[in-house]
Amino acid sequence: MKSAILSVGTELLFGQITNTNAVFLSQQLNLLGFDVMYHYTVGDNPQRVKETINRAFEGCDLIITTGGLGPTQDDLTKEIACETLHDEMKLHEPSMEKLEDYFKKLNREMTDNNRKQAYFPSRAVIFDNDAGTAPGFTLEENGRRIICMPGPPREMTRMFEQKVMPYLETLSEDVIFYRMIRTYGIGESQLETDLEDLIDKQTDPTLATYAKEGECSLRIASKRHTKEEAEKAVDDMLETVKKRVGQFIYSCDDEDLSSVVGKKLLEQNVTISCAESCTGGLFAKTLTEIPGISQVFDRGLVTYSNKAKMDELGVQASTLEEYGAVSEETAIEMAEGLARITGCDICISVTGIAGPDGGTPEKPVGLVYVGASYKGTTLSKKLTVRNVNRTWNRTTTVLAMLDVTNRLLDGRGL
Amino acid sequence: MKSAILSVGTELLFGQITNTNAVFLSQQLNLLGFDVMYHYTVGDNPQRVKETINRAFEGCDLIITTGGLGPTQDDLTKEIACETLHDEMKLHEPSMEKLEDYFKKLNREMTDNNRKQAYFPSRAVIFDNDAGTAPGFTLEENGRRIICMPGPPREMTRMFEQKVMPYLETLSEDVIFYRMIRTYGIGESQLETDLEDLIDKQTDPTLATYAKEGECSLRIASKRHTKEEAEKAVDDMLETVKKRVGQFIYSCDDEDLSSVVGKKLLEQNVTISCAESCTGGLFAKTLTEIPGISQVFDRGLVTYSNKAKMDELGVQASTLEEYGAVSEETAIEMAEGLARITGCDICISVTGIAGPDGGTPEKPVGLVYVGASYKGTTLSKKLTVRNVNRTWNRTTTVLAMLDVTNRLLDGRGL
Repeated sequence: MKSAILSVGTELLFGQITNTNAVFLSQQLNLLGFDVMYHYTVGDNPQRVKETINRAFEGCDLIITTGGLGPTQDDLTKEIACETLHDEMKLHEPSMEKLEDYFKKLNREMTDNNRKQAYFPSRAVIFDNDAGTAPGFTLEENGRRIICMPGPPREMTRMFEQKVMPYLETLSEDVIFYRMIRTYGIGESQLETDLEDLIDKQTDPTLATYAKEGECSLRIASKRHTKEEAEKAVDDMLETVKKRVGQFIYSCDDEDLSSVVGKKLLEQNVTISCAESCTGGLFAKTLTEIPGISQVFDRGLVTYSNKAKMDELGVQASTLEEYGAVSEETAIEMAEGLARITGCDICISVTGIAGPDGGTPEKPVGLVYVGASYKGTTLSKKLTVRNVNRTWNRTTTVLAMLDVTNRLLDGRGL
Repeated sequence: MKSAILSVGTELLFGQITNTNAVFLSQQLNLLGFDVMYHYTVGDNPQRVKETINRAFEGCDLIITTGGLGPTQDDLTKEIACETLHDEMKLHEPSMEKLEDYFKKLNREMTDNNRKQAYFPSRAVIFDNDAGTAPGFTLEENGRRIICMPGPPREMTRMFEQKVMPYLETLSEDVIFYRMIRTYGIGESQLETDLEDLIDKQTDPTLATYAKEGECSLRIASKRHTKEEAEKAVDDMLETVKKRVGQFIYSCDDEDLSSVVGKKLLEQNVTISCAESCTGGLFAKTLTEIPGISQVFDRGLVTYSNKAKMDELGVQASTLEEYGAVSEETAIEMAEGLARITGCDICISVTGIAGPDGGTPEKPVGLVYVGASYKGTTLSKKLTVRNVNRTWNRTTTVLAMLDVTNRLLDGRGL
């Protein structure tokens, strides 16, 4: 089925935001077996939205729109879709109830333009919005079909995954099954070299590598008549891949390293605490993103100043003076101090230079020491993070800390 | 002048790459005073490229294309532009010389399809490519104008800045100046209601509201003959806006609240530390994103367990028992304990229920208490965060903590 993506929003035409919705939807539609023929972007202008929908239907049977479903006057995508496919707007009671409930909870008054959000074309199938106030919907007429979703990416992606994808699966003949394999510790060129013959020969399953911040993913995809056939083809290929680069794989289901580590901590009931300097709380923040982690995560200390390192962790003034705050010795004393205080099974520490300033020829930006106290022993690991910018340096440092934790949990060496 | 941006490339329709070219060009065109009416994306398909160019010319006088200028068979944007504007392809000698030179240096043989890159419409103005082999060009016929540039962002942006921008400046009569006003504590519908007459009457300057995670932005834009006139019109409107919603504005220059707070802390040399429960280090992480913040940020304690709250901050067991970990009393004792330990000017604490689990009818997910010890006094603030998901709840809680800090720094009440 031929499809087009229409993004509605003047802010896109001003270049204020990047159209990540079109990227996400293109990936998803292609995976579901739909051909994406066009991307269109127009502003919040009813005439141009209408004209573009009409044009898109000349070459496509399916149009997916994002944006223009909000409460304000220029949010008119819904009304235009309704008119184009010859339907009439009607109050949708469940949506009105949800809206009223929402405003009651917030203790805010509902304005007339909010009420507009509960009206839909009478033949529409409504898609609830779990992350915002504007529901989505689909409307069909003589094989021409439009799906309208809200513009904020967080709301749109959730609605797509939970509501729209299952709906689209009923329309598509072929299914694509894929696994996103996540690796740590191997670069993209090396991964490609190790799998070169498999990538070159690809017809089905296909293999593609993607570099992400500090790590690398591999997508194995197969398009077959049934999900079972596609899944089997992918899993057979995965076995071959594992034989070559298995030691770098930490997830075969596109899970973040933090989720993998969090699950293992909870399953094995291993308690953890952390002492951070250069990452400034990012490791604690990342671990505590996992619901239920309070069962094993005791505390995190962001000992940014030298005084805090001494006060909170008992790092020796002489160590800081002799070796510096960014040193193996300090990392180890931080982890050992933390273990004394918390008695947690794993006590992990980090000290380094996140940049942009603070580097020297001996200790450049990107130099990081990770300490880990585990089962009575304290280990350390020196990292040289590629200095891109402060955010990258901190993010990749936390990945390395998670990798250290993962290795300890697996009983592997650092 | 009305303009459209056409991105050519099948990889965009697969969602393999994000269309950053459209963002860049939209920003630049708007700043030069061109109205961007449409973004179009099509694959490397001559028929659809041609059809889309024709359609774009129905509503616009200027089309900017990126992509499809390379040496391969499906790179046909140039030929289609030539045909649409009734010109003929002709060898461009200087481009051929450059190409020959390039291949000589590389010690590679030049193929016929490489030679194609030196042919251009006879009336075209050529834009050299300093970063690749495919030059760009512009072609005009009866006031309809097309500008074609290569697709790789590095080549395109350089060509635009060095060659295309000076060319476009000769065509444009107006310039646009805008400010992005950032607010906290007011919802989008309320902001729109408060400014309704200004928004409705808008011709110039124009006003538009944007909802972001937990906050709201307002864009004020003006299009005039000179930048000075436009800037004055925007700033005059800003004064009117400030009279109505000034208490919610924290930046008139599109700065994040964390940057605003970080700058004030550094400028006023006010030291700060934090004790976090539900946000799990996100406040510390956000503050330490600011380079140089180590001058004023002493430490952060992520006291996740009750034991950690008692050990690290001296929260009383009886307080935790009587009022619970999520209570005003605990938030205050956390802030006071932190002040005793660190002696920082501002000691900020937070305790709450981030979800998805852990809520009760009395203490639902989203209930948060912020404590702040400042100049010998400890204040607290109760928040009811709209429960979207754990990430949202934590992010908006940190925004509220930054708002509290900002208010203390400004000497305003919470």
